[in-house]
Amino acid sequence: MRKFSRSTHTVGLPPGTLKPKPSDRTDTVAVGLIAYDEASFTERTFDHVDDCIEFVERDRTTWINVAGLHDVTPIESFGEHFGLHPLLLEDVLNTAQRPKVERYGDNIYLVVRMLDFDAEREEIDSVQISIVLAGNALITFTEDGPDAFETLRERIRSGRPRLRRADTAYLAYSLLDLVVDHYFVLLEQIGEHMEHIEEALIADPGPDTLGAIHRLKRELIYLRKSVWPLRETIATMLREDELPFHDSIQLYLRDLHDHTVQVIETTESYRDLNAGMLETHLSMVSNRMSEVMKTLTIIATLFIPLTFLAGVYGMNFDHMPELHLPWAYPTLWLIMAAAAAVMLRFFRRKGWI
Amino acid sequence: MRKFSRSTHTVGLPPGTLKPKPSDRTDTVAVGLIAYDEASFTERTFDHVDDCIEFVERDRTTWINVAGLHDVTPIESFGEHFGLHPLLLEDVLNTAQRPKVERYGDNIYLVVRMLDFDAEREEIDSVQISIVLAGNALITFTEDGPDAFETLRERIRSGRPRLRRADTAYLAYSLLDLVVDHYFVLLEQIGEHMEHIEEALIADPGPDTLGAIHRLKRELIYLRKSVWPLRETIATMLREDELPFHDSIQLYLRDLHDHTVQVIETTESYRDLNAGMLETHLSMVSNRMSEVMKTLTIIATLFIPLTFLAGVYGMNFDHMPELHLPWAYPTLWLIMAAAAAVMLRFFRRKGWI
Amino acid sequence: MRKFSRSTHTVGLPPGTLKPKPSDRTDTVAVGLIAYDEASFTERTFDHVDDCIEFVERDRTTWINVAGLHDVTPIESFGEHFGLHPLLLEDVLNTAQRPKVERYGDNIYLVVRMLDFDAEREEIDSVQISIVLAGNALITFTEDGPDAFETLRERIRSGRPRLRRADTAYLAYSLLDLVVDHYFVLLEQIGEHMEHIEEALIADPGPDTLGAIHRLKRELIYLRKSVWPLRETIATMLREDELPFHDSIQLYLRDLHDHTVQVIETTESYRDLNAGMLETHLSMVSNRMSEVMKTLTIIATLFIPLTFLAGVYGMNFDHMPELHLPWAYPTLWLIMAAAAAVMLRFFRRKGWI
Amino acid sequence: MRKFSRSTHTVGLPPGTLKPKPSDRTDTVAVGLIAYDEASFTERTFDHVDDCIEFVERDRTTWINVAGLHDVTPIESFGEHFGLHPLLLEDVLNTAQRPKVERYGDNIYLVVRMLDFDAEREEIDSVQISIVLAGNALITFTEDGPDAFETLRERIRSGRPRLRRADTAYLAYSLLDLVVDHYFVLLEQIGEHMEHIEEALIADPGPDTLGAIHRLKRELIYLRKSVWPLRETIATMLREDELPFHDSIQLYLRDLHDHTVQVIETTESYRDLNAGMLETHLSMVSNRMSEVMKTLTIIATLFIPLTFLAGVYGMNFDHMPELHLPWAYPTLWLIMAAAAAVMLRFFRRKGWI
Amino acid sequence: MRKFSRSTHTVGLPPGTLKPKPSDRTDTVAVGLIAYDEASFTERTFDHVDDCIEFVERDRTTWINVAGLHDVTPIESFGEHFGLHPLLLEDVLNTAQRPKVERYGDNIYLVVRMLDFDAEREEIDSVQISIVLAGNALITFTEDGPDAFETLRERIRSGRPRLRRADTAYLAYSLLDLVVDHYFVLLEQIGEHMEHIEEALIADPGPDTLGAIHRLKRELIYLRKSVWPLRETIATMLREDELPFHDSIQLYLRDLHDHTVQVIETTESYRDLNAGMLETHLSMVSNRMSEVMKTLTIIATLFIPLTFLAGVYGMNFDHMPELHLPWAYPTLWLIMAAAAAVMLRFFRRKGWI
Repeated sequence: MRKFSRSTHTVGLPPGTLKPKPSDRTDTVAVGLIAYDEASFTERTFDHVDDCIEFVERDRTTWINVAGLHDVTPIESFGEHFGLHPLLLEDVLNTAQRPKVERYGDNIYLVVRMLDFDAEREEIDSVQISIVLAGNALITFTEDGPDAFETLRERIRSGRPRLRRADTAYLAYSLLDLVVDHYFVLLEQIGEHMEHIEEALIADPGPDTLGAIHRLKRELIYLRKSVWPLRETIATMLREDELPFHDSIQLYLRDLHDHTVQVIETTESYRDLNAGMLETHLSMVSNRMSEVMKTLTIIATLFIPLTFLAGVYGMNFDHMPELHLPWAYPTLWLIMAAAAAVMLRFFRRKGWI
Repeated sequence: MRKFSRSTHTVGLPPGTLKPKPSDRTDTVAVGLIAYDEASFTERTFDHVDDCIEFVERDRTTWINVAGLHDVTPIESFGEHFGLHPLLLEDVLNTAQRPKVERYGDNIYLVVRMLDFDAEREEIDSVQISIVLAGNALITFTEDGPDAFETLRERIRSGRPRLRRADTAYLAYSLLDLVVDHYFVLLEQIGEHMEHIEEALIADPGPDTLGAIHRLKRELIYLRKSVWPLRETIATMLREDELPFHDSIQLYLRDLHDHTVQVIETTESYRDLNAGMLETHLSMVSNRMSEVMKTLTIIATLFIPLTFLAGVYGMNFDHMPELHLPWAYPTLWLIMAAAAAVMLRFFRRKGWI
Repeated sequence: MRKFSRSTHTVGLPPGTLKPKPSDRTDTVAVGLIAYDEASFTERTFDHVDDCIEFVERDRTTWINVAGLHDVTPIESFGEHFGLHPLLLEDVLNTAQRPKVERYGDNIYLVVRMLDFDAEREEIDSVQISIVLAGNALITFTEDGPDAFETLRERIRSGRPRLRRADTAYLAYSLLDLVVDHYFVLLEQIGEHMEHIEEALIADPGPDTLGAIHRLKRELIYLRKSVWPLRETIATMLREDELPFHDSIQLYLRDLHDHTVQVIETTESYRDLNAGMLETHLSMVSNRMSEVMKTLTIIATLFIPLTFLAGVYGMNFDHMPELHLPWAYPTLWLIMAAAAAVMLRFFRRKGWI
Repeated sequence: MRKFSRSTHTVGLPPGTLKPKPSDRTDTVAVGLIAYDEASFTERTFDHVDDCIEFVERDRTTWINVAGLHDVTPIESFGEHFGLHPLLLEDVLNTAQRPKVERYGDNIYLVVRMLDFDAEREEIDSVQISIVLAGNALITFTEDGPDAFETLRERIRSGRPRLRRADTAYLAYSLLDLVVDHYFVLLEQIGEHMEHIEEALIADPGPDTLGAIHRLKRELIYLRKSVWPLRETIATMLREDELPFHDSIQLYLRDLHDHTVQVIETTESYRDLNAGMLETHLSMVSNRMSEVMKTLTIIATLFIPLTFLAGVYGMNFDHMPELHLPWAYPTLWLIMAAAAAVMLRFFRRKGWI
Repeated sequence: MRKFSRSTHTVGLPPGTLKPKPSDRTDTVAVGLIAYDEASFTERTFDHVDDCIEFVERDRTTWINVAGLHDVTPIESFGEHFGLHPLLLEDVLNTAQRPKVERYGDNIYLVVRMLDFDAEREEIDSVQISIVLAGNALITFTEDGPDAFETLRERIRSGRPRLRRADTAYLAYSLLDLVVDHYFVLLEQIGEHMEHIEEALIADPGPDTLGAIHRLKRELIYLRKSVWPLRETIATMLREDELPFHDSIQLYLRDLHDHTVQVIETTESYRDLNAGMLETHLSMVSNRMSEVMKTLTIIATLFIPLTFLAGVYGMNFDHMPELHLPWAYPTLWLIMAAAAAVMLRFFRRKGWI
């Protein structure tokens, strides 16, 4: 079963304690840096965080990406360099968070989830993305997983004017837009998966289909939990004057808000459809059982009385006058046929055959 | 299964990228123009967008209709001419949007869905209508589909004073009114369809009826998703000072709002009724099965003991004194008849027959 | 199935178009007029609207009642005389409206539904009542149906001081009070109907009872739809300064609001009880089927093994030594009785008998 | 079935008409009076209302209790003496009201319900308590029923300083507190009743248990209806500046509000548990039926093929070579035993035995 | 069944009456005291409350812990010393409260619940923690149960600067943080328990599993009831200017609020999953029954007609020509085999085998 609670949390430790996320990886965490303005563009990868910090510039928009949370060194280093709040750093390492935006002093902390549907395991894979806005720099911390930002990096490299001209607020928006766009892909994958289940439901409403419906229900609960708070998050970004998004990218955020609402509504529609599947499954099984029962009842009610008659004339009483009549046997056949005909007529009137 | 997510969206592309909607059509998109004031009236159709743009006038209300989204040329041309925001143009091409009204600079963007019920496929057909208000001009962009605006065009042609005197805000209202009026037709069609299902439910609660209930559920989910946001949209039009609807057509919008609420409430009632159908179906199947079982039980419990008795006297033991008594055979018949009578009485007392 | 949507609406016609309600009646619509103040009282009935209009007075409270919507002449005449808004007149003729209060210029438009329960058809009959306040005059437009206002007319005739002294706002309140009082009668009728269904549910959970539960569900959905918006309507009357009710009859409206809330809560309770009935029905059917199955199982499991034994000794093998033993037959009877006893004990332990 | 609607209401009568509650009692209604301040205390009972009115004092807190609504004389007398609004007096006699607080001129009107659980009839008994605050006097009107106020009277008699020092607002609070405290007793009684049902559900999920669950559901719906509006009522008392409770007993009312919320939440939990019971009942019945079916299936599938074999060798064909083989009979037994063993193994693999 | 209502409450007693919680313990209640500032630290345990009160200091943060509510002496003593409101003291002894924060004069009263999951009994154990802030002192009152505060005490002892520097507001926050952290442990335990149930559901959907689902439902209802009001409580602490939390620990409370929301959302997800389990259980049982029925039907419909045929030729009529044909017996076998083959084919086409 999917873990719903934050297992990495350490009960009783003082708030702000940093504990690396358990992982099989032991390598140092790679740190990628992109610094750009309208005219220039630099891209570098560092093995050591300290080398990276030297490169952070005041006059250019700088995007730092830290992929992996099994090593707390980069988090601590950036925390110290940018003066990040201990609770913010704890949040980065707590990989079971709800999407939110939070202001810690001069820094903004954003957290969202990148979701993918693994059709084979019938599960949603989730990678938490923490976005920290510290002055001219934007730092992203992600769990291990596929690199989701390549298309955005490509857009920066290719010198898209809107993006290159803009500050970290627009960069943060672009990251959120990327995430929300992925939700549509996810919804389409789940939609296709639901089509398969629906077909299976009609063809064979067995325990396998029931299991698939049940698993889908769980994943939709998870999806809902991951997406609902995002609407609130974007609404906060739109509304709050204190956050840097209010003025500069109002229109873009409104668009993003719209898309998020659309994702949520589709999720809710899926949940409704999934609930309907369970009810349909129950009805399908009942329908099938009803059909099975009808067959049994028709056969049994046809033959049980006839077998009784045959049994009667198989008895060995000395005095059974019917047995000696020459036309008794064919007459009995006629009686039996008549009884069967009456029965069949009764079944037809009942609509069973 | 109906596609719920916006399949045409292009993940990772920068916001504002225009991508034509995939379609089999390759012809150029026809552009219709109607310009009118109280005194005069002009109606034209253009094969090329540029010809149309020349005709847009400052002093008359101009309605331009673009039917088809497989070709982005008209969208780009009008976008350039009227200075429309890139996100607005992207929205026009994204045909899976929720109804909304949005202000982009000086322009207003409205999107609604025209819905039709296809009784044969038991599906709601949906055509997205984008309405752009740019100064004295109103542009409608629609997907392929039947021409829904003819009655309105006829009213303009025939010189209805209220309409001819009015500006684009009233024209936009008239378009919305047309759409909402169609929802009532749709609801009536669905209502009739539900009557058919209810009759089938009583007559034959088989898997076909179950499928119809299930499909209806899906369509009602879709209808709900399409209509709910419209209420919010019209409420926004009523409330917002910045939009041009607030003052001029307050009363008309309030009326429209009322109708929309009525559509929503009827949709919710239909959903309740549909949920009741599923429960009734389950109960009907159980009822039927119960009846089948009763028949089987009555027949089987009547004849199984009698068959046993017949079996006993069909045994070949050398020493079975009953077999040789002259009155044994008729006595057994009497015993059997008595047993059957007792059984039947028991069934009657139970209320099974 | 009850029609939920407004079937009389004419799609595509310009807003404000008047279309008579289809009806079998062809007579002219009678118009009743009551004019009164504290001292005097006049009551008249007119065959022609124009005669009536002459009688409308400035200095006395005048109540005009138009019963029947198949003829639009009175509506148009009063509309012209009092300067009523076209949308208001359209609303009067649209007999599928939600309860609401609306201000059109100087006139107030109120619409409510008078409901009656027809126990035979198990359906709620509904008559729409439109109330227009125009200066000193109050006009009521009703669909065909029983005259619901007689008790109120009687109170005016008998010279009740509170009523005779008051203006049209109090008269409007008195009409609403009459309608809401009728809802309590309706609820009691439905409550009695539910008692009948509950008794039938215990006595015979067959498809008839299921049908009755289902029909009740539909009527409760309809009742809810008709009553819910009334609360909002009365709240608006209480709240809005612009409406003439705010100051003069505050206390009376608060009382009415209370009663409406009580009607709504009782309706919701009925809906809960109705939902429970469906669940109980399903459980009852399952219970019954379980009992039927037990009977079948007991009989079948008792006799099938015994019949097998009888069958064995009915075989015609040449070499069956048991057949020739003198005590074999009675011994077999003993074995059979013992087997039956063991079975019965097993059933008792299982709690089946 | 419990009457949910106010049966005593008289449709069409003018608002404020007083109609006595139908009752078997014909005696005059006893009126109790307690007048007290910190120093002194007087307690009297009157047979005639007019005697009582003379005793109402200006300078001491006076609590008048009228027990019984079958006689409207005391209500009219007090109404006249204290100048109570006609709608207030009508509310006192309408014994199916929702809890509420209402200001009528200088007087405050409070209505709550005292509830008791009758475990035998499995029903909640309800007595409506109307509290009227008129200057220094507090009047309570109750339906017939057990005297619920004795403990409070005892506290006044014994001279509790807080209570004796206080005004009618605190006395009203004390009455409400008494009522809400009784709800906790009620909840505990219902909780115990639910335990009994749960035990019965496991032991015997028959129609009796189903009936008990259904009746419990109805009582919980009734409880909910009676308690929910009380929260709103107390919140109004806390919030409204115009009511006399705002300042003097703020802390006490907050405490009471807390308790009411707790009662509501427990009621909701009970409703959830009750809903679960119905589902569990259905599952239990299905489980039982499944067990019954398994028994039938095992016996039938074991013996039906064997009986067929016995039937074959009971046939009377002239040419059946097997019948004449000396080892045929024991061989057939072996074959039958082997077939039974295979069947039993199949059942075990299926997990049926 | 878990007691949902506050059983210790004494109906009819005046508000503020203190009644010890019934308990088997008779020893005096131990009182622990920790006083600290940044530089110094004192920890003491007292057998008598009066000794403790002398130690309460003005200039250091003092935390007093009272473990056990069977003896009201400490509560009364502290109440007198710190001037606590009688309602506050009553709340401390009422161990069935909802989480809340309340201001009583200069003192703040906070109540929360520490929850543990007992996997064996499948029940949530609950200990109520009352926190009183009185000037520089913070007093915690807990029911009997395991000492939950040791980790926090250890942090104070080890001289954590943030904690030692801070006032009682931060200490109160630390206590709440401890409690909420425990909820995550609880959720994980319940999550594991749900995994076990899900496995059991697939393996054997018997009444035991049904019971476990039902018990889980009850515990989740209880959990929900305990956690929901905590969000409101923390929101109040964040919002209210009058409470001392607003300014000093804003960021920490926001973090705590986030965690609480996460706990609530996970609880809701669990409830959804639990509801799905019940539905799945019903479907599983139906599936199983359907499979059982199929087996019975296949066997019975195969052999009942064949047994009939065998019965026919077991009859003893004198004139049955078939019996004397030499090839009749093998022909009958062939006919029987053919009938069985047709049946099996029919079953295969139906998808039953």
